Amino acid sequence: MPVLHLTRKEHFNAAHRLWNPNWSDEKNYEEFGICANPHFHGHNFDLYVTVKGSPSADTGCIINLKELKDIIRKEIIEELDHKNLNMDVPWLSHCIPSIENMAVEIWKRLSAALPEGAVISKITLWETQNNFVEYYGE
Amino acid sequence: MPVLHLTRKEHFNAAHRLWNPNWSDEKNYEEFGICANPHFHGHNFDLYVTVKGSPSADTGCIINLKELKDIIRKEIIEELDHKNLNMDVPWLSHCIPSIENMAVEIWKRLSAALPEGAVISKITLWETQNNFVEYYGE
Amino acid sequence: MPVLHLTRKEHFNAAHRLWNPNWSDEKNYEEFGICANPHFHGHNFDLYVTVKGSPSADTGCIINLKELKDIIRKEIIEELDHKNLNMDVPWLSHCIPSIENMAVEIWKRLSAALPEGAVISKITLWETQNNFVEYYGE
Amino acid sequence: MPVLHLTRKEHFNAAHRLWNPNWSDEKNYEEFGICANPHFHGHNFDLYVTVKGSPSADTGCIINLKELKDIIRKEIIEELDHKNLNMDVPWLSHCIPSIENMAVEIWKRLSAALPEGAVISKITLWETQNNFVEYYGE
Amino acid sequence: MPVLHLTRKEHFNAAHRLWNPNWSDEKNYEEFGICANPHFHGHNFDLYVTVKGSPSADTGCIINLKELKDIIRKEIIEELDHKNLNMDVPWLSHCIPSIENMAVEIWKRLSAALPEGAVISKITLWETQNNFVEYYGE
Amino acid sequence: MPVLHLTRKEHFNAAHRLWNPNWSDEKNYEEFGICANPHFHGHNFDLYVTVKGSPSADTGCIINLKELKDIIRKEIIEELDHKNLNMDVPWLSHCIPSIENMAVEIWKRLSAALPEGAVISKITLWETQNNFVEYYGE
Repeated sequence: MPVLHLTRKEHFNAAHRLWNPNWSDEKNYEEFGICANPHFHGHNFDLYVTVKGSPSADTGCIINLKELKDIIRKEIIEELDHKNLNMDVPWLSHCIPSIENMAVEIWKRLSAALPEGAVISKITLWETQNNFVEYYGE
Repeated sequence: MPVLHLTRKEHFNAAHRLWNPNWSDEKNYEEFGICANPHFHGHNFDLYVTVKGSPSADTGCIINLKELKDIIRKEIIEELDHKNLNMDVPWLSHCIPSIENMAVEIWKRLSAALPEGAVISKITLWETQNNFVEYYGE
Repeated sequence: MPVLHLTRKEHFNAAHRLWNPNWSDEKNYEEFGICANPHFHGHNFDLYVTVKGSPSADTGCIINLKELKDIIRKEIIEELDHKNLNMDVPWLSHCIPSIENMAVEIWKRLSAALPEGAVISKITLWETQNNFVEYYGE
Repeated sequence: MPVLHLTRKEHFNAAHRLWNPNWSDEKNYEEFGICANPHFHGHNFDLYVTVKGSPSADTGCIINLKELKDIIRKEIIEELDHKNLNMDVPWLSHCIPSIENMAVEIWKRLSAALPEGAVISKITLWETQNNFVEYYGE
Repeated sequence: MPVLHLTRKEHFNAAHRLWNPNWSDEKNYEEFGICANPHFHGHNFDLYVTVKGSPSADTGCIINLKELKDIIRKEIIEELDHKNLNMDVPWLSHCIPSIENMAVEIWKRLSAALPEGAVISKITLWETQNNFVEYYGE
Repeated sequence: MPVLHLTRKEHFNAAHRLWNPNWSDEKNYEEFGICANPHFHGHNFDLYVTVKGSPSADTGCIINLKELKDIIRKEIIEELDHKNLNMDVPWLSHCIPSIENMAVEIWKRLSAALPEGAVISKITLWETQNNFVEYYGE
């Protein structure tokens, strides 16, 4: 059976700030520059969730796309959209909300919520039109 | 010799419907939702064909891009553009025209038409701006 | 007070066919080419609705964007998404569903549904990534 | 002499919140919904500045594009990028930082900074991929 | 009868250089910067041609889009694609090939080639993803 | 530790020509078509540089994105932007400046310039909106 990768795109708008509370202000600004500005800044994040599998002989699809969309919206978009990623999201509170850390935590959270048989193969997270991160779960 | 992957994008506009003729109407609507609407709906499909190889010392290219374009247009675009994928395409008639099944059939059809030495490494098919499928031939 | 134009984008996927029932088949194919194919084709339509007004001193906004979105979705997207524009939409049944005619009918339908004070200034409708139509209500 | 409109695009990432301090919390949340969330959210804003004029016989251009870029970056981008629009920008502090109010203030600020003879004809400001505002200075 | 504006997008890839032969080298580099580099640079130009009119009662369209496409390709794209705009295009040889001058000349050339009744309302020419020019024929 | 891939996008505008000096004119035109036109043509190239690594516990990031941007701009963009790739770039002069050869040379040049610990995993180079090449360093 052929194996395919199906991707669904969603987006959310959020504020964040790169800041290490164990560092001095000076060291934070040196490392993070304007990304450390005290009153936060924000982005339109684009999230691509990729699942892999073989198309069902009954449906021609590897997963029901509407179900996938609903799970992403419930587990991720409703949690992050129009939020402050440093202050408002319990499952991000243990780490600096960089797109690297966000991608790893989104992978964990979605993996636990997807129905049996659905396997994530990649999380892609765009922060601006000029940079993004990819995580393959390894 | 370095190995590179070269991708050509083409697009086509087509109608389709997700529908399993072995199922009751009720089961079809439950599974496929509005994608099962009886009079079809349609999409602007974006097709990305990726071939791999080493650049020729004579040309700097791994394949003649115009040849690749001509083959994709003849074998795929002329077959699918402005067509009904459920009714008008003999090589899709044995399956539900989901993007998963389409990607697999496009791979087969292009593989048979490409000149010797040209190797497809990936077929990517976008159905809307929010979802797409990737197939690596495995 | 300054006057601004605010635009909301929505999209829908639909099938259609350009066909004049008063013409012979021959004349239809000559005029419309592959757009007249009998079993329909389809598109991912992008709809931009522009309203004009002055920002309220209380809100800074010329209209509540969520209200605008809800009206467009109820009046247009739910009516057209995953439908056959020639067969399934009563308010398009009197005309050929070209993007020109669709833009005019969308203008009329939205104008009647918007709250008092909200004034449409432009309807923009993209059919493919290469063509679109603009209507200013005149 | 022909008159043309030349547009330069820039972007910035910022946090904001829609909130009227003269209203109760309840009324704010009712009007602005999630856009009123207390710890801010943010966007990747795309700013298009359009100037009009006739091409110079000497240069073929209506304005030196590098000069225009430098003025936009100095007057707008450095002021807004990676900032909190409610707290960090003196020239926005008198109003709610909606894209409507931002477009009007950007127009004023750029008009005062452009060299004699350069005339702004339009400010376009995208907040998300689904909504934007246009201001023609009237 | 409603009036609509229909736009067709085409693109071409060309080399050019901003250079005034009546000026010293020094003055050219001061004015045009890297755009004056001696061995040319190039762009992927996106051309949007907008025509206005009322939809025909017979076709629902204001112009036959295939005819419009064919005229743009014959009159403009075949003339400019993969060319050097300073050296290879007779109808641009009297001016500096800035996008301003190009838009005016494209307007003239297309106006002369369009069938009676088809009226151009706007030429839009993108030079990079960050700048473009619009010409309304006045 | 999770491994992520971080990508930064930059762009440059350049002229080039596909031409093998060891071939006759006739053979060049037969192989390269309009890409061999004598006075060059050009493109807006989009370059995506992907590095891989694990996020630092201190910063949440796998590399300082500003450092990565500065290195790409110094080593690649300043070298290629507004240049003639056949004539102006010493490190491309030994080969035909196809996107295949460019991607390999960009990989080599960036690898030598990146700080210890930063590992490139992919170079992606778009030549037009319809074709691009990917190189994984193998």
